[in-house]
Order: sequence, then structure tokens, then C-alpha cells
Amino acid sequence: MASDYSVAVIGASGTTGNEIIRILKERAFPIRSLKPLESEISIGRSVEYANDDMPVQVLDKDSFKGIDICFFAADSPTSSVYAPIAVEQGCVVIDSTPFYRMYKDVPLVVPEVNADKIKGHRGIIASPGSMAIQLVVPLYPIHRLFSLKRIVVSTYQAVSETGPGAMDELTDQIRALFCFNEPAVKVYPYQIAFNALPHTDTFLDNAYTAEEMSITDETKKILDDDSITICATTVRIPVFYSHAESVNFETDKKITPQDVREVLGNAPGVKIEDDPSKNIYPLPIYASGKDECFVGRIRQDISSDNGIAMWIVADNIRKGAALNAVQIAENLISISEK
Amino acid sequence: MASDYSVAVIGASGTTGNEIIRILKERAFPIRSLKPLESEISIGRSVEYANDDMPVQVLDKDSFKGIDICFFAADSPTSSVYAPIAVEQGCVVIDSTPFYRMYKDVPLVVPEVNADKIKGHRGIIASPGSMAIQLVVPLYPIHRLFSLKRIVVSTYQAVSETGPGAMDELTDQIRALFCFNEPAVKVYPYQIAFNALPHTDTFLDNAYTAEEMSITDETKKILDDDSITICATTVRIPVFYSHAESVNFETDKKITPQDVREVLGNAPGVKIEDDPSKNIYPLPIYASGKDECFVGRIRQDISSDNGIAMWIVADNIRKGAALNAVQIAENLISISEK
Repeated sequence: MASDYSVAVIGASGTTGNEIIRILKERAFPIRSLKPLESEISIGRSVEYANDDMPVQVLDKDSFKGIDICFFAADSPTSSVYAPIAVEQGCVVIDSTPFYRMYKDVPLVVPEVNADKIKGHRGIIASPGSMAIQLVVPLYPIHRLFSLKRIVVSTYQAVSETGPGAMDELTDQIRALFCFNEPAVKVYPYQIAFNALPHTDTFLDNAYTAEEMSITDETKKILDDDSITICATTVRIPVFYSHAESVNFETDKKITPQDVREVLGNAPGVKIEDDPSKNIYPLPIYASGKDECFVGRIRQDISSDNGIAMWIVADNIRKGAALNAVQIAENLISISEK
Repeated sequence: MASDYSVAVIGASGTTGNEIIRILKERAFPIRSLKPLESEISIGRSVEYANDDMPVQVLDKDSFKGIDICFFAADSPTSSVYAPIAVEQGCVVIDSTPFYRMYKDVPLVVPEVNADKIKGHRGIIASPGSMAIQLVVPLYPIHRLFSLKRIVVSTYQAVSETGPGAMDELTDQIRALFCFNEPAVKVYPYQIAFNALPHTDTFLDNAYTAEEMSITDETKKILDDDSITICATTVRIPVFYSHAESVNFETDKKITPQDVREVLGNAPGVKIEDDPSKNIYPLPIYASGKDECFVGRIRQDISSDNGIAMWIVADNIRKGAALNAVQIAENLISISEK
């Protein structure tokens, strides 16, 4: 690859695509040319890059000529159709949709954990779901030293993951309720304002949601360890940005909260916020716009012989999606340039 | 005791006290006279009972003459000072504050579970915290048949538990944010609007909150089994009414989701809402104002050899506080009348 790159972003005007473009600029990714792409429905929109308004172009099979790196941030159907075409035309695809995540020959990468998998790619590198990303960033260094056996996680997920329509819906429902009107329900199956929905994705036959099973499957794949057992309960709450996770995990080797603090104190991508005496713990409103996975409420799990309970918060649009994709690209080019 | 009763309610104008008075009327509790009491700060307020506005009277050591049953629904200091005085004057005290819950000679009662403990009272009967109540109502019938070993619970708690000031704070913060103003933070340590606070009570030396340890301790006391291990993470979310719990539990005997459905189908105080294919699961907005503990998302815990994951929602002011206290009183008089 060259030392600067032609980059395309599919779904450029969506929440993740837009944030990818912002982060590419923010982190001074070496871009020769940027091509924002969308399926036809979004044509007429534009995206901002380097203080310029760039019109979004129509995605078609000829969109990838001369492109080095292509971020897919639209939806699974779009990735399934266009990612192979992009690869055929010589692009490296970094896919933020769920479509390729569990493909055997597609690396599923969180750079703090398994950047080494990037070099084995065959054209497509998948970026995991937001809940798996913020789980593995702090759990990986713990796993390396203490060997994870079991993880139980309950989530507190922001509406921004669902897109701008969901953010509008939360706002509109609150406005309606404050005026004693019936809130309109369109994006989610029930009112999200002042509610908690234990339903963030399609239900599967085993009564888990697809997202709950993805957390299980993706975490095992990223940690490269099928022996870890994981149970997730995913819940949408009326928060705009940043997901939180209440996590209980057990390890093979004896572990204490002090061990966790020592390991995570030097872990890449992790920031410990944990001083209950001063009311210091991670909060969605403060994690928003930041890059780290924030960890707090670290304590011995008193229900287990050898476990830890803790609370992890991260910006679902940044580390949970766009930032992770850009970090994959950064690692990709640093390998290529070696 | 007589077949109708002189009843006093301490903290009558507070959220729980007010609801106790409403539920006494609603369930036609045999009342001869009702005396709403408050510490001085609330004087001038009144409460509604049987379409009458009753002025709240000042609580003092002479308040209990002629009273049969006294509901304490103010705070721990008030219960600690006045409950013994009430008992001395012949009242039976039903205490909804945390103060007496872990006293060895005070029964801690959830009528669906351990109504039999009422008859051993020595003047004071304690009603548990809301999170323990909605945990034990569905878990007790499971424990009886399958023997619980371990419970992991993460909570999604409504602001109404903290009182009217917290409900105003959530409303006011949203209004401020919608007008691009800085939201005022008074009741909680941080903004609760569009946030999730992993901090619902004082922090203890072991890094758990007092409420997290109460869930552990009260659950063991109510289930009368010290061998069960319990780890709780309590989280406040921007919901007005009804608490939710994401629960993972393990049992001694082999258990399946079908077993749970069969046991809970006939369990007192429980209603199963569990049909993912039709988007049926418990929700805070629909549990509000209802008496049952709603259980859904029942599924095998795929991280454990023998466990279940489920989702429990109940109205924190009704079953979580006022209703449970009134049910204790109903059981008390039915025992007395035998």
C-alpha cells in the first residue's frame, strides 16, 4: 500500500459512518482521497470532512476503483453484497456491521486485544459489536493473567446505537409525556422514555436476543478461547450516548480487586475510575465523546469463590463502533508499511 | 385484637406512607380510625383517605395511645426512636424503613414467602427493601423445589424510590437540557437524566453499597438460608416508577426454563410475561400501579451448568414498599382473629 490512502466510507451519513470520517480527520489518518458513499436512499446528503462539505455519492459496483481501504458502516445487507465486490477490486474492507463477524476466515479485531490477527486477513476485517468491544478491552489483560472461566453481563444501552431516529423518538416521547400526550412509538416496540426494554435485537429460538448471543460468540472469538462461558442480558435504557455493563466474572487463578486495579492500570484503552469514597465511578454522560473503556465499582464478587464484579462504560459510537474501525485501519497500514 | 383497628401511619405524606393509606382503603382494610403522623417538618400537609382530606398530625411520644397497628414509613432515625415507644404502648409496628430489618428478633416478612414468621413477632415486624422483595417473591418457590445456590443480580431502579424530590429532579433536568441549560444536581451526586448511576446508597468498606449488601442479607434472611450466595449491583436509571432486575441464578437440582414457568405459573404474587415471539416481557411502565412481580426473559443461563437467567419487574412503591406492609398487616389480623 501507499503511504497515503484512498478511503471510502459506506453509510457515510449514518451515525457510525459520520463518526468514522470525523475520527479519521481527528487522528490525522493519512488520506489521499475520501469517498463518502451511501445506498440511494441517502443521496443528496453531504458529510463534513476537513471543513469541507462533501456530497455523498451513490454506492454501486463501480464505487471501489482506486480505493485502498473501505469502511462499511451501513447495514448487513449492504456489506453482504458490496464487501466482496470491494475486495475483488483490491480494497481492504473494514466492516462494522454484524455480517462477517463470525465468518471463520474473517478476523474479528479489537486492536488492544488481537491486532495480530489483522495480518491474516483475506480482504475483510470485521469490527465487533459495541457490547463485545467494551467487554474485551478490560477483560483481555485479566484473561491473559488469570484465565477467565465465566462472564455474566447485564447491559444498559444507549439509544444512539439504533440511530438518529431512536434519539428523536426518545426526545419526542419525553416532550409528548411532559405535555400529557400519548407518546408515539415507532422505532422500538414500546415506549423507551422512562422505561427499560430487555429487548435490543431479534429474539432467537433459545430465547436470547441475537445481540446477547453475539456478545457470547464475539467475545469468545476475540479472546480466542472457546472454554469461557458467557451469559448476557441486553437492555435498552433512556440514555442517548454510551453503553454501560454490569459484569461478574470468575477466573481460574485467584484474583482480588487489587489485582484487577494493577492489571487495568496499565491496560491499553482502559481508564480506571474507581473511588467510591469520592463518588468516582464511570458514568455514561461523562464517557461520551471519549476513547477509553472506563472501569469502576471493582470489588470481590461475594457470591463466588473467585470472582470480581465491576462496571464498564464506553462511548458506543466511538470505541464501540467508529474508533475501533479506524484503529483497525491504523494497525493495517502500520503492518503494510513495515 | 379487635375486628376493626385503629391504625397510624408515620410518614403519612411521603411516597410510601401515602400509598399505604391508599392501599388500606383500596383493599378495605378494617379500619376504625386512621391517624396520619409526620415529624414536625411536614405539619400543615394533609392526606386523602376515603375521599376526605385528613390533616397530618405531629408525631410525638403520646401519638400511639389507642393505636393497634402502626405503619412506619418515614426514615430509619424516626423508626429507631418511635417504634419502641409505639410497642411499649401496645401497638404492633410494621416498619418499612431499613432500621430493624436485620435485627435477630424482628421478623423480616414478605407474605408470599414467610407469613408464618409474623406470629413470632415481639411488637415489630419489618418489611424488606424493594429490591429484595421483588427478588424473593419469584425465587422462593424456585428455591423450595430446586434449592438456590447462587444469585447474581443487576438492578435498573426508578427514581421514585428516592422520593418526590428525585422525581422533580429528573423532570427538571430534562427540561433544562431540552432548553440547552445546565441541569441542577441536588438529590443525586450526578445528573440522573439520560444517565445510569451505579450508586443507589452509601458506599461501605467492601466497596459495595449499603443497598447491595441489604439485597444479599435480606434475601438470605427471608429465604431463611445462609448457604445461598448473592452478589448485587444496584443502578439508578431515568425511570419514574418500577424497578427491574436482571437475575442469573444457579440451583442445586437440575432446572430448565420450563420448570421455572411451571413453578411460577402458580406462584402467589407472580405473573409471567414471557413470549419473546410476541414481544411480551415485563416493562417498568406497565408494571407501575400493579401488585404482581412480573417475570419474563426466562431462559437457560448458557454460562452455567445449571442456571437460569430472567428479568423481574415490580412497582417499587406498591409491592416494593406499601403493598407489602399492608399485606403484613392483613396477615397479622388474620392470625389474631383465628
